[in-house]
Amino acid sequence: MKIRPLGDRVVIKKLEAEETTKSGIVLPGSAKEKPQEAEVVAVGIGGTVDGKEVKMEVKVGDKVLFSKYAGNEVKIDAQEYTILKQDDILAIIE
Amino acid sequence: MKIRPLGDRVVIKKLEAEETTKSGIVLPGSAKEKPQEAEVVAVGIGGTVDGKEVKMEVKVGDKVLFSKYAGNEVKIDAQEYTILKQDDILAIIE
Amino acid sequence: MKIRPLGDRVVIKKLEAEETTKSGIVLPGSAKEKPQEAEVVAVGIGGTVDGKEVKMEVKVGDKVLFSKYAGNEVKIDAQEYTILKQDDILAIIE
Amino acid sequence: MKIRPLGDRVVIKKLEAEETTKSGIVLPGSAKEKPQEAEVVAVGIGGTVDGKEVKMEVKVGDKVLFSKYAGNEVKIDAQEYTILKQDDILAIIE
Amino acid sequence: MKIRPLGDRVVIKKLEAEETTKSGIVLPGSAKEKPQEAEVVAVGIGGTVDGKEVKMEVKVGDKVLFSKYAGNEVKIDAQEYTILKQDDILAIIE
Amino acid sequence: MKIRPLGDRVVIKKLEAEETTKSGIVLPGSAKEKPQEAEVVAVGIGGTVDGKEVKMEVKVGDKVLFSKYAGNEVKIDAQEYTILKQDDILAIIE
Amino acid sequence: MKIRPLGDRVVIKKLEAEETTKSGIVLPGSAKEKPQEAEVVAVGIGGTVDGKEVKMEVKVGDKVLFSKYAGNEVKIDAQEYTILKQDDILAIIE
Repeated sequence: MKIRPLGDRVVIKKLEAEETTKSGIVLPGSAKEKPQEAEVVAVGIGGTVDGKEVKMEVKVGDKVLFSKYAGNEVKIDAQEYTILKQDDILAIIE
Repeated sequence: MKIRPLGDRVVIKKLEAEETTKSGIVLPGSAKEKPQEAEVVAVGIGGTVDGKEVKMEVKVGDKVLFSKYAGNEVKIDAQEYTILKQDDILAIIE
Repeated sequence: MKIRPLGDRVVIKKLEAEETTKSGIVLPGSAKEKPQEAEVVAVGIGGTVDGKEVKMEVKVGDKVLFSKYAGNEVKIDAQEYTILKQDDILAIIE
Repeated sequence: MKIRPLGDRVVIKKLEAEETTKSGIVLPGSAKEKPQEAEVVAVGIGGTVDGKEVKMEVKVGDKVLFSKYAGNEVKIDAQEYTILKQDDILAIIE
Repeated sequence: MKIRPLGDRVVIKKLEAEETTKSGIVLPGSAKEKPQEAEVVAVGIGGTVDGKEVKMEVKVGDKVLFSKYAGNEVKIDAQEYTILKQDDILAIIE
Repeated sequence: MKIRPLGDRVVIKKLEAEETTKSGIVLPGSAKEKPQEAEVVAVGIGGTVDGKEVKMEVKVGDKVLFSKYAGNEVKIDAQEYTILKQDDILAIIE
Repeated sequence: MKIRPLGDRVVIKKLEAEETTKSGIVLPGSAKEKPQEAEVVAVGIGGTVDGKEVKMEVKVGDKVLFSKYAGNEVKIDAQEYTILKQDDILAIIE
């Protein structure tokens, strides 16, 4: 199944990273704060959105930071995604 | 009866899918989360809406994801529909 | 008495339909959900409203669906009407 | 004393109508719902208001319907008036 | 001391009128409702305010009606004034 | 240390005036209402702010009146300042 | 790891300063009010943001004052950063 977001929307998949504490213990993703890091899986075409011209700055595969409470969560083929406006993406991690 | 949505509005019919659990049990739609998937049944002509030019991106028959709480629910000929603004449609599923 | 709505406003009269249940019993309008269907009885001339150009899409006699909580209810000559902005009309029923 | 409303404002005087019930009893205005009908007593000159061009559509003497909670009530020479924006006037009664 | 209001602001001084009741008793201003009548004591130069062109319609000495809760109260040389936007002035009393 | 406010922001220092009551007692600033009078200590360059052209009307050294709750308080070198938008300055005292 | 903020966003790192009280005691940063001073570590390219042209005024290395509650806090490589819109930066400290 393929998702094509409308307008300036972006589909992202949250990344859950393992983390090693100072004492060497590995904390799985679920034991930490809600992640804010994600990978872009689909990007709208931008254009005129709400009467304003929007140019898409992110592309599929980018690692991004996003506002924790932004967007809509959807589940497709048992995988959770978040669909949000590009403006809710804070930064690209390079 | 035919519905012609005004401006940038779209009429959708929610899709309730059967789902097979890992153990093989089939869950009917009502036992699951409120669906966010729908089929487009009518599309407004767009044009100038609230002083802004809107181009319709969805067409009748498209499968779409939409914001759970968006739009107005109406019942026509015993069938429930949701009428929402195209901007409340998150993505097209292809 | 004649009502001439200002700007992009529309005057509608709610329709209360009789409905036949599967067992054949007729339910009068008052036993059902609040109706959302109405007939247009007067239409403003549109033009520049709040600095934006509005073209009227509905005409007197149209059957329309409208947002349940939209507009102002007024009683004129013992008949109840709702005066709302055209943008609160969701769709025309044909 | 003369009131000259600024911009797109309009000064109206609420009308309290006597009403005859089916049994023939006359109800004075105060025993009924808050009136929404009024007569226009002064009209601003319109022009550029909040950066938008406003053309005045009502004139002194018009009978109008207005939003019940709109505007500011003022008392001048023991007479109560409401000063509201023309956009809060719903319709002209002809 | 002289006050020069910025942009489309206006400085007004509330007027407290004596009022004679029907029985002839004079009520000083403080025993009545909060006054909404004022005299203009200083007027900004208007111009571009918040990106919009504003033309000042009131002038020093005008008697005006204003929204009861609008503006900021300031005390200068033991005299109370209200500084508000011209748009919060409802009407000029002539 | 020098503060350079961004855009249409202004840095002000509140003035606390001594006040002599009618009986001749001097009230230090802290025993009175929160002051609303201030001196401008730094002014942004204006220009395009939030898509609108802003021309700075105040200059360093101006005595101004400002909205009591406007702006952000900051402490620099043990001195308290308020940084606010020029639009939150009500008037210049001359 | 490198962060590239989108649009008119800026990444800052809060500065915690030691402070010497009058009695000569050194207060570490955590015993004081939440700091509002920060250093800019990354700057977006600006351009058209929400339909408005934004020119970036801050640059990497600038010491800035920012609104205490603005922006999103993120932790990258065990270091906390705040990502905010340039408009939430109040002033540059020189």
